[in-house]
Amino acid sequence: MDYNEISFRVRYCETDQMGVVHHGNYPQYLEMGRIEWLRSFGVSYKAMEDGGVILPVVSVSVNYKKSAYYDDLLVVRTRLSKKPMVRIEFDYEIYNGEGEFLADANTVLAFMDAKKNKPMRCPEDILRKFGY
Amino acid sequence: MDYNEISFRVRYCETDQMGVVHHGNYPQYLEMGRIEWLRSFGVSYKAMEDGGVILPVVSVSVNYKKSAYYDDLLVVRTRLSKKPMVRIEFDYEIYNGEGEFLADANTVLAFMDAKKNKPMRCPEDILRKFGY
Amino acid sequence: MDYNEISFRVRYCETDQMGVVHHGNYPQYLEMGRIEWLRSFGVSYKAMEDGGVILPVVSVSVNYKKSAYYDDLLVVRTRLSKKPMVRIEFDYEIYNGEGEFLADANTVLAFMDAKKNKPMRCPEDILRKFGY
Amino acid sequence: MDYNEISFRVRYCETDQMGVVHHGNYPQYLEMGRIEWLRSFGVSYKAMEDGGVILPVVSVSVNYKKSAYYDDLLVVRTRLSKKPMVRIEFDYEIYNGEGEFLADANTVLAFMDAKKNKPMRCPEDILRKFGY
Repeated sequence: MDYNEISFRVRYCETDQMGVVHHGNYPQYLEMGRIEWLRSFGVSYKAMEDGGVILPVVSVSVNYKKSAYYDDLLVVRTRLSKKPMVRIEFDYEIYNGEGEFLADANTVLAFMDAKKNKPMRCPEDILRKFGY
Repeated sequence: MDYNEISFRVRYCETDQMGVVHHGNYPQYLEMGRIEWLRSFGVSYKAMEDGGVILPVVSVSVNYKKSAYYDDLLVVRTRLSKKPMVRIEFDYEIYNGEGEFLADANTVLAFMDAKKNKPMRCPEDILRKFGY
Repeated sequence: MDYNEISFRVRYCETDQMGVVHHGNYPQYLEMGRIEWLRSFGVSYKAMEDGGVILPVVSVSVNYKKSAYYDDLLVVRTRLSKKPMVRIEFDYEIYNGEGEFLADANTVLAFMDAKKNKPMRCPEDILRKFGY
Repeated sequence: MDYNEISFRVRYCETDQMGVVHHGNYPQYLEMGRIEWLRSFGVSYKAMEDGGVILPVVSVSVNYKKSAYYDDLLVVRTRLSKKPMVRIEFDYEIYNGEGEFLADANTVLAFMDAKKNKPMRCPEDILRKFGY
């Protein structure tokens, strides 16, 4: 399986007065998706950060097709776009509990050495965990 | 002047444990930018929504160049990308208080008739306020 | 069992630059707790709201004892404080995945008839579901 | 004047599907209020934190009287409750742009030595700035 799936319920506070999930919450959902994608390969982002490797976000884009609603059981599918180098790129699809396609998205993150505050390549041991 | 500028201070809660503003807050900043852009042309988004015209977000993309920090006085510059039709598109630039360029972004929103739940053209009176 | 337990993972965006979960997220956690408490008695808050009964929050108080951290698997225990009348009151305890006690909290909500915008008593059918 | 006032506009994303400002945003508003209260006495919370003194929140309580709405120009009035010792306590009142009273609140924060991770007394130079 080349993608990872997480499921979670929309929080009330995530709705806005249009009666739908505010679009600004989606970057959070993507973040949850890629963190669980990493975990599914045995990579804890928390441990990575404690070890001095951080992953600041370089770009986010989201295309909204259908609205999500309060109490929906959303599904985020996360997929690696290509082999990570100095950057790691993910594609996402978001569905509701009825399997309706709500949004797709893409994020690019950079591997950074936190101490030196410098870009770095994806560490070899992590690449191996990803199957490269 | 073809762009509108707003300025506001980063809230503590908007930082994350990397010590910077979490990237997920930027869509909120863009929203604040375009709402004040509308207001600068005499268009209240609140009044528009009360009048049955809503503007759901169709897409958001953000490119992050430099980090924003707690207590920074951020500036969001909002510009209309082109003449609004059934959609309205904005370009944004975000700067910190020292004038450093932090991010650029783009959003597309759709004019919707809230009652009919149907897409519509940008109302004529609003187009005129925008100078078209 | 007189309390309901939910468990969820801290989101990265919920941390702040102190390196802990920002205290402002806890009201959201309490809301998630009481909504699942209701669900455990067969009461969907979504259905209740669709049926014209809303539950605006009258008061929230939280006492923070220990910090929560990124990636923690938090547990929220929700308990009804007393028989609901025109108001419904909940007590909460928050624990981390190691069972450490992090916070306690209390919220009071009011039963409101959404159409009339007036306070009302807790509907009889809901009281019965709660065992009264 | 023994209190400090800030004013800011409600963000769209702060509303929920009840059509009002979600109650969970108020702790953020209080934080903004006390940070500007500090600034009005020449105390930068950012500088304090950079200097190794942090102020984790010990308790928050909010009483909600009337709803706030999208686009409201809210006013937060912040007042010191008593002389700061190892803790600092604030009282707040929140009003809308029409001067209607919306909520009152109280927060208690602890002075902490960030390096030693230990409680400490309010530093003398800060006490003096507060007029003690």
